[in-house]
Amino acid sequence: MTTDTKQLRVAMAEVSARVEAAMYADLDIRLTGSDQLLREVVEYALFSGGKRIRPFLCVLGSRCCGRDDTDLYILAAAFEYLHTATLMHDDVVDHASLRRGRETVVQRYSLEDAILAGDWLHAHSLYVVGKLTGADGLDIFCAATEAMVNGEFVQKRLSGDCRASEEEYFAVVRQKTGNLIASSCALGALYAGAECAKVQSLQHYGEQIGIAFQIVDDLLDYTGKGESTGKELGNDFKEGKVTLPLIRTLESADSDERRRIVKLMQGNRTAPGAQEAIVSYMHRLGGFQSAAKTAQSYIDRAIQALAPFTADPAACLPAALLHELASFILVRQK
Amino acid sequence: MTTDTKQLRVAMAEVSARVEAAMYADLDIRLTGSDQLLREVVEYALFSGGKRIRPFLCVLGSRCCGRDDTDLYILAAAFEYLHTATLMHDDVVDHASLRRGRETVVQRYSLEDAILAGDWLHAHSLYVVGKLTGADGLDIFCAATEAMVNGEFVQKRLSGDCRASEEEYFAVVRQKTGNLIASSCALGALYAGAECAKVQSLQHYGEQIGIAFQIVDDLLDYTGKGESTGKELGNDFKEGKVTLPLIRTLESADSDERRRIVKLMQGNRTAPGAQEAIVSYMHRLGGFQSAAKTAQSYIDRAIQALAPFTADPAACLPAALLHELASFILVRQK
Repeated sequence: MTTDTKQLRVAMAEVSARVEAAMYADLDIRLTGSDQLLREVVEYALFSGGKRIRPFLCVLGSRCCGRDDTDLYILAAAFEYLHTATLMHDDVVDHASLRRGRETVVQRYSLEDAILAGDWLHAHSLYVVGKLTGADGLDIFCAATEAMVNGEFVQKRLSGDCRASEEEYFAVVRQKTGNLIASSCALGALYAGAECAKVQSLQHYGEQIGIAFQIVDDLLDYTGKGESTGKELGNDFKEGKVTLPLIRTLESADSDERRRIVKLMQGNRTAPGAQEAIVSYMHRLGGFQSAAKTAQSYIDRAIQALAPFTADPAACLPAALLHELASFILVRQK
Repeated sequence: MTTDTKQLRVAMAEVSARVEAAMYADLDIRLTGSDQLLREVVEYALFSGGKRIRPFLCVLGSRCCGRDDTDLYILAAAFEYLHTATLMHDDVVDHASLRRGRETVVQRYSLEDAILAGDWLHAHSLYVVGKLTGADGLDIFCAATEAMVNGEFVQKRLSGDCRASEEEYFAVVRQKTGNLIASSCALGALYAGAECAKVQSLQHYGEQIGIAFQIVDDLLDYTGKGESTGKELGNDFKEGKVTLPLIRTLESADSDERRRIVKLMQGNRTAPGAQEAIVSYMHRLGGFQSAAKTAQSYIDRAIQALAPFTADPAACLPAALLHELASFILVRQK
C-alpha cells in the first residue's frame, strides 16, 4: 500500500464514520414512532459495510469548494439513501440473494419489504436534497434518478442482442452509474456555493470515474473472485447483458468466432460450460485487456478534470484524495 | 343526479382535462429521448381513466385561496404521479392483475417495468413538488410518502390479527390514505400562498374525506359489484386485512360468534364459502351499517372544516365543490 492509498483509506474511513453518524441521527428523527420492522429493514439495508463512495464524493466535492460543516454529512447520506433504495429494487428485479457478502433485503425479509422500504429511502433522500440544496440540487438529483431508470429500460431492450453497439453500452453506463456519481460531486460543489465552472469540473470528474467504475464492475463480473467481491459473479452473462468486455471480444472476432459467441449468448446461458466458453473467448481475443485499457482512459480524463482544484492551495488536499480515489478504482478487486 | 352533483362532475371533468394536458406536456419534456418502453409504461399507468381526485383537491385547495394558473395543474399532476407510482408498487406486492377494469402494469408488462417505472414517477413527482412549492411543500409531500410506507408496514403487522383495535385501523388509514389526500389540499393552499390557518383547515378537510374514502373502499371490497368497481373484490378478507366492517362486527359479536369469526380469519380464507360466511356475519351483526355511519361522521367533520371558505365570497364556489365532493364520497359505487 502506498502512502497515498493509505491517506485515501484514512479519509474514506473518517468520512464514512461521520456520514454513518449523520444517518443514525437523521433516521432517529425521521423514524420516531414508525413501525419497528420498517426501521429494521431500512437499517439492515443501509448499514451493510458499503464503501460509501457516493457520500465520500459529495463531501470531497464540497471541501474542494471550501465548505465543510455538519449538514454536509446529511446531504452526503442522501446519496447512500438513494443508492441503497435502487439496490433494494434491483435485487428484487434480479432475484438476487447475495450482496456485499450477506443476504439481500428481498431474500432476508420479503418482496414487499424490499419494495416499500426502498420507496421510503427514495422519498427521504429527495427530501434531504431538496431541503439542503433547493430546486437546483433537486433538479440534478431527480434527473439522475430518472436517468437510472431509463438506463435500466435501455439495458433490458439491448439484453442478449450482440449487435448492441459501444455507443449504446456507454449510454447505459452513463445513465445507470455515471449520472449519480457525477451528481454526488456536483451537489457537494453546489452545496458549497461554488461557481458554475467548478460544479461542472467536479461533475465531469464524477461522470468519468463512474463510467470507469462500471467498466471495472463489468470486468469483475467475469474475472473477480466471489470471496473478495462478496456478491454473485457471472450474472451479466446469465442475464444476457452485453457489456464492454463482450463488445470488444466481438470486435476482435473473425466471422466464425463471432457466430459461435452469438450462439453462446442466444443459447442456454446457464448450461454447464457456457460461462467458461465465453470467458475463454474473452481472454483469447483480448476483450478483458481492451476494456481495462478503456477504463484507464476514463480515469485519465477524470484526473485531468481535477486540474483547477489541484492548482488551488485551498483545494489541493481534497483534490489529491479525489485523484487517489480515481486511481484506486482501477485496481479494486471488489 | 342533483344539480350540485352535476356541477361537481362538470368541474371534475374540467380539472381532469387540464391536469391531463399538463401531464402530457410535462412528460413530453421530461421523457424526450427516453426509452420508448419506459414512456409507454408510464403513460399506460397514468392514463387509465383514474378519477384524478387528488389533483382535483390540489386545484380546489389553491382556488379556495385565490390562485389558479398554469403551473397549478402541473403541481396537481404530481399527486397523480405519486399516487400512480404507489399503485404500481402495491400491485406488484399484492400480485394484482386487475385495476380500473384493465390489466395492472405488473400483469401487462413485467415486475421490473412496474417497479422501475414506479420509481421514475416517484422521483418525478418529488421534483415537481420541490420546484413549485419549495422545501415546505416537499416536507409535507415526503412526509406523506414516508407515512404511506409506514402504514403498509403497520397494516402487515396487524394482518390476520382479530385483536387489531379501531385505533390501529385508523392509524393505518390515516397514514395510507388520509395523509396524501390531506397533502393534496394543503399543497394547493401552500402554492397559493395562503395563511397557515387556511392551509390547516384544508389539510383537515382532506384528512377527514381521505379516511371516509378508505372506509367506503373497505365497505365496497365486501359489498361492491365487480363490474362497477372495475377491480377485484374480496381481497381484504383473502389477505387477512382487518378493516372497519370486521372490527365493528367483532365488537357486536357474542363470544361464540366471535370464536367462529376468528376461526374464519385464521383458517383457509380462500376456501369455498369462507368469504360468504364472513359477509353473512357482517350483515347480521351490523358491521357494514356501523362502518358506514362512521364514514358519514368523518364527512360531517370535513364539511365543518370548510366553514372559513364557505363564508368567504371569493372562495365559496370552490368550497361548494369540495362540499359536494365530500358528500359524493359516501354514495360512490366505485
